[in-house]
Amino acid sequence: MSEKQNRRIVLAARPKGEPQQEHFRLEAVDIPSPGEDQVLLQTIYLSLDPYMRGRMNAGPSYAAPVEVGQVMQGSTVSVVVESKSPDFAARDLVLGYTGWQEYAVAPGKSLLKLDPARAPITTVLGVMGMPGLTAYTGLLNIGRPKPGETVVVGAASGAVGSVVGQIAKIKGCRAVGIAGGQRKCEFVVNELGFDACIDHHSAPLPQNLEAACPKGVDVYFENVGGRVFKAVLPLMNPFGRVPVCGLIAHYNAAELAREIDRVPLLMSAILVKRLKFQGFIVSDFVAQKDDFVRDMSQWLSEGKVKYREDIVEGLENTVAAFQGLLQGRNFGKLLVRLAPDPTLL
Amino acid sequence: MSEKQNRRIVLAARPKGEPQQEHFRLEAVDIPSPGEDQVLLQTIYLSLDPYMRGRMNAGPSYAAPVEVGQVMQGSTVSVVVESKSPDFAARDLVLGYTGWQEYAVAPGKSLLKLDPARAPITTVLGVMGMPGLTAYTGLLNIGRPKPGETVVVGAASGAVGSVVGQIAKIKGCRAVGIAGGQRKCEFVVNELGFDACIDHHSAPLPQNLEAACPKGVDVYFENVGGRVFKAVLPLMNPFGRVPVCGLIAHYNAAELAREIDRVPLLMSAILVKRLKFQGFIVSDFVAQKDDFVRDMSQWLSEGKVKYREDIVEGLENTVAAFQGLLQGRNFGKLLVRLAPDPTLL
Repeated sequence: MSEKQNRRIVLAARPKGEPQQEHFRLEAVDIPSPGEDQVLLQTIYLSLDPYMRGRMNAGPSYAAPVEVGQVMQGSTVSVVVESKSPDFAARDLVLGYTGWQEYAVAPGKSLLKLDPARAPITTVLGVMGMPGLTAYTGLLNIGRPKPGETVVVGAASGAVGSVVGQIAKIKGCRAVGIAGGQRKCEFVVNELGFDACIDHHSAPLPQNLEAACPKGVDVYFENVGGRVFKAVLPLMNPFGRVPVCGLIAHYNAAELAREIDRVPLLMSAILVKRLKFQGFIVSDFVAQKDDFVRDMSQWLSEGKVKYREDIVEGLENTVAAFQGLLQGRNFGKLLVRLAPDPTLL
Repeated sequence: MSEKQNRRIVLAARPKGEPQQEHFRLEAVDIPSPGEDQVLLQTIYLSLDPYMRGRMNAGPSYAAPVEVGQVMQGSTVSVVVESKSPDFAARDLVLGYTGWQEYAVAPGKSLLKLDPARAPITTVLGVMGMPGLTAYTGLLNIGRPKPGETVVVGAASGAVGSVVGQIAKIKGCRAVGIAGGQRKCEFVVNELGFDACIDHHSAPLPQNLEAACPKGVDVYFENVGGRVFKAVLPLMNPFGRVPVCGLIAHYNAAELAREIDRVPLLMSAILVKRLKFQGFIVSDFVAQKDDFVRDMSQWLSEGKVKYREDIVEGLENTVAAFQGLLQGRNFGKLLVRLAPDPTLL
């Protein structure tokens, strides 16, 4: 092992607008050794998620930014190479938060042991993990969908949006997705069971969406922003709810559009229609994790929730994959495979 | 009585922007006669409230607009002139919704009998009425202030804002008002007991407000919009709540400002700070009216809630008074006295 090195991707400079290759640096450093109660991990899967764009910016947000020169952060599924923790042994599979690198040392208490017999190990990064919990808690706590209502979600073939729509169906709602391209829309309707899916590449988006929501919109799960939000807002019904989970259309925006200030229109819609907008992040509802695991395990076993993964091979392709995520080029939960998955051998 | 006539103000044309005298017409018509179960009322006090600007516009809102040629709507305190209802007798004092006119016929069941021994009859149009209930339900249901938090409200010397801040104090919060002019600010602090009040005529508003809110803002009761909202938003604390009750700064806006679209900034603040924005109107919470009457009666009797009225004399001064309301020229709950108040004789 002494001849191997740890390849990792660090933030080289803070992007303004779209992240480019030059904002990252692939380094090779010595593989660290675990101390007391620590384990050495080899990364199998790295999760790529839109929130990471925020971590590349300086300034306050709900989490501290990644500093320039630091390894980019992210959730990972890894195999234990060497353990100095009583709780883990070599070859154990674990969920951790070790970032964009091939090896890492982590405290045993920061890791969750995975049972590959229970569910594919990738699902802990998607439908059974943070994205699934985000969809579940945001939709149920803030969206509070009632049978017969219409729930709209963007990025509908993605890790969060796909779960939002499927839970909406389980709760007896009409689920309408918005996705980029005909292939994704067909998947959302035919595989995931949404009632309709609108391709946001096909004009006119507002009219197409209106036709798909003949009784208006009661819950809009906001994870995209931009012109999708603009198309949904006029369709909101009185007492509609908008869980604000993400705004991927804005993450790369270097400046605001010079046109008219639509804040008065938005505030007026909130007032007149008595809408509720509420921002959240998944950690706000972490107390509901047990409920989520119970419900989602059941829905998966019953085939009521399905998922799709988009797996990219190799650390060196991580930056391009992340660029594609922000542009909607992935199709399903985006993962990078950094080493062979032992459960597939 | 046959020689007297009913003077009334009808909507003559829909205003674009600021309402002008030409948008209204003062008419004199015969005084109507009450039918079965109806009463003839003479208006003593007419309440003028910002929501009336919305009723002058065509198009859907939470209430139907006043049609051109119709009497302008509004809450009133009246004396019964003649009753064909078993529930009312001549000289009874009642709360009704008979609009901008000196006489009206109304069904007995649309009226509430007032007991002038219990509270001054004007209070049912203000602190004990719709504006007080608006403040109470919006602050407590959506704002949910906790002891030690900071509550900010605009139009702080007005009918709603003054009650919001005083309830915030009762709930153990720091209450910060925003009002137009030094005289109003002194009243808000010295008479109503707010911790601070910022004059929005004095620059710089954002810095003055920040200095008055050293621990940020947990609840912003939105009844003004415009640059007050713009100054408050950056001060909102994580998990802050914004009951959206009114947007008086926008009501006369004929078009949107051509500058930059700040919707992405607002949505981003909602997401990152996990803010809750929720629109409401008083009728949404009408089930809480008994709680409100009980609490507010007690607070008034204990001197914990005070109020101020701004009374204009004569129907012919109603339009000018309403224009002044939208410009912040009133000082306290705005009422028009159309006939002598028998409780003051």
